[in-house]
Amino acid sequence: MNIAVIMAGGAGTRFWPKSTKEKPKQFLRLFGKKSLIQQTVERLSGFIDEKNVIVITNNDYVHLVNRQLPNLDSKYIIGEPLARNTAPCIASAAALLYRDNPEAIMVVLPADHRIAENDRFLKVIKSASQTAAEKNSLVTIGIEPNRPETGYGYIRREAAPVATFNNQDVYRVKNFTEKPELARARDFLKSGDYLWNSGIFIWKVSAIVDAFRQYLPEIFEQMEKLASSEKKESDINTFYHKCPSISIDYGIMEKAEHVHVVPASFGWNDVGSWKAVHELADKDEAGNAIGDSTVILQDASGNLVDVASGKTIALVGVDNVAVVETDDAILVLNLDKAQDVKEVVDEIDRLAETE
Amino acid sequence: MNIAVIMAGGAGTRFWPKSTKEKPKQFLRLFGKKSLIQQTVERLSGFIDEKNVIVITNNDYVHLVNRQLPNLDSKYIIGEPLARNTAPCIASAAALLYRDNPEAIMVVLPADHRIAENDRFLKVIKSASQTAAEKNSLVTIGIEPNRPETGYGYIRREAAPVATFNNQDVYRVKNFTEKPELARARDFLKSGDYLWNSGIFIWKVSAIVDAFRQYLPEIFEQMEKLASSEKKESDINTFYHKCPSISIDYGIMEKAEHVHVVPASFGWNDVGSWKAVHELADKDEAGNAIGDSTVILQDASGNLVDVASGKTIALVGVDNVAVVETDDAILVLNLDKAQDVKEVVDEIDRLAETE
Repeated sequence: MNIAVIMAGGAGTRFWPKSTKEKPKQFLRLFGKKSLIQQTVERLSGFIDEKNVIVITNNDYVHLVNRQLPNLDSKYIIGEPLARNTAPCIASAAALLYRDNPEAIMVVLPADHRIAENDRFLKVIKSASQTAAEKNSLVTIGIEPNRPETGYGYIRREAAPVATFNNQDVYRVKNFTEKPELARARDFLKSGDYLWNSGIFIWKVSAIVDAFRQYLPEIFEQMEKLASSEKKESDINTFYHKCPSISIDYGIMEKAEHVHVVPASFGWNDVGSWKAVHELADKDEAGNAIGDSTVILQDASGNLVDVASGKTIALVGVDNVAVVETDDAILVLNLDKAQDVKEVVDEIDRLAETE
Repeated sequence: MNIAVIMAGGAGTRFWPKSTKEKPKQFLRLFGKKSLIQQTVERLSGFIDEKNVIVITNNDYVHLVNRQLPNLDSKYIIGEPLARNTAPCIASAAALLYRDNPEAIMVVLPADHRIAENDRFLKVIKSASQTAAEKNSLVTIGIEPNRPETGYGYIRREAAPVATFNNQDVYRVKNFTEKPELARARDFLKSGDYLWNSGIFIWKVSAIVDAFRQYLPEIFEQMEKLASSEKKESDINTFYHKCPSISIDYGIMEKAEHVHVVPASFGWNDVGSWKAVHELADKDEAGNAIGDSTVILQDASGNLVDVASGKTIALVGVDNVAVVETDDAILVLNLDKAQDVKEVVDEIDRLAETE
């Protein structure tokens, strides 16, 4: 049996004004008619059935999951009472499963990434699942880098593969690396042995439970309690309140001995800012991404328009700009400053406090 | 008696989306709490009473004049059934007056200009009125140029003044010039004898009537008919339909023999585009003009924000841009391309036709 565990806890502020505390990035339709989390579930179809999808999200977003993914099994929607990073998140899902399904393959995925080539994605996931089943190891997907990116963690693999499953080479992992400086990122790119850490993990339920027992016993103790409870909301709440906040990378992956990586290249993007949305969107010849809006473009190129109101939009003489309108706000953003949108949200919070 | 004749017929398209066919520039509050036409009337107070103000506008805008200037005498609001340029516009006002008030001083002003220094403006108008009364000539106000502007017509004056009224030198006009090329505009600026044609004229009613009789007899004939009619809407309509379309500059000023000019410098601006609005508006230290809106500025300078909705606006990393929002539209404009807004309106008209 294959189980997906979708981590949907993020409260991303880089997509203001479209993303808000009430509706963060993973629930937005940034591309096409489906939200990122809907696309994440859909992407697995044929390999993992919707009834075998677990979604872990903030308590406040459970209603959004119910609305956007109505076919999920309600016992598989976990509302976190507070954010405790990825290790407790994954542990709670494993605790739901391991009494009944210790041999199930668990595919852990972030809810808010974009993957362009679905067939290649599924091929890689199947290869990783075979690796997890046959090697009984913890498997991760490493994205082949195409630039010296300093915003991601890296995975260093061994030079030669240890196996080939589903026509994909599988490597042992030498080590994980935090976000590097640019010079180091350039060396990583040149060496050919480094891959981007995608945050996608595949393992048998029993294997990750064993890893928690060995490397994070404090969390393992809570998993045991949750597994033997009725798994009601109060049991989930107790679990999260008692777990320390720690990432799966730092808590387990960097320490575990049997870790494999499947190098992959399937048009992966973590959609980190409006700039990424512009890069990924359909564009006209002048590089303008305007979606379904009525936009009049005069001497305008490389822009992104995302408006809610159905108003007529005109861009005159502007390049490389995002114009985002919601019911409450308008953002006009130099796309090269897309990371700074976070500071706008900080400023709005500050203004709200002083009111 | 002093009478103001305010020409308010323009359908300006350069202030889209704030200006529309339904509400053109002269009725907009681009600066402060009053519209440009309200400011034009207010500017004359102390010299010309509101009950002596004639407004000539398109028929479609009469209700706007009634609403914005409720103290005017309703017989002094003339609705043009069609635009016929400035000569018929001025002729219709003169026809209302000349049977009863041939000796009145008539001050003709565009409704949509901005004048910063009111005291100096009134001083100049009083000087021009004295000139018109004592010399029985046609008087115009010439703005002292401060740059080689190619967008205005110029007035060339004689080297020496012929008189001084109200402490202002008054000159005879040598000739009027259409919008020059840049090289020529530079020569004009250097010579010191050239002034910008402000479109402000002062004369006795009898003097301009005589000028129409002499230089535009076809219009004079219609003036006689209108003057002896009951001056009902149908009489006004007949007048306009029978008049040729011609400007007062071309039809009379360039041909008349006794024309004087009062050189002036009172912070005049014809508010030709959003760029002019930005130049004239109150700005913060970084050159942002944001009015009363809630605007979050991150690394943003030299911008203009004019929004109708009360939404939160954020500008991130953008410079020299206007963001204008109305109930129907949003404009994002490079201020150096402010003239191109006209083309947006053309494009909208084209789109509407093909629907």
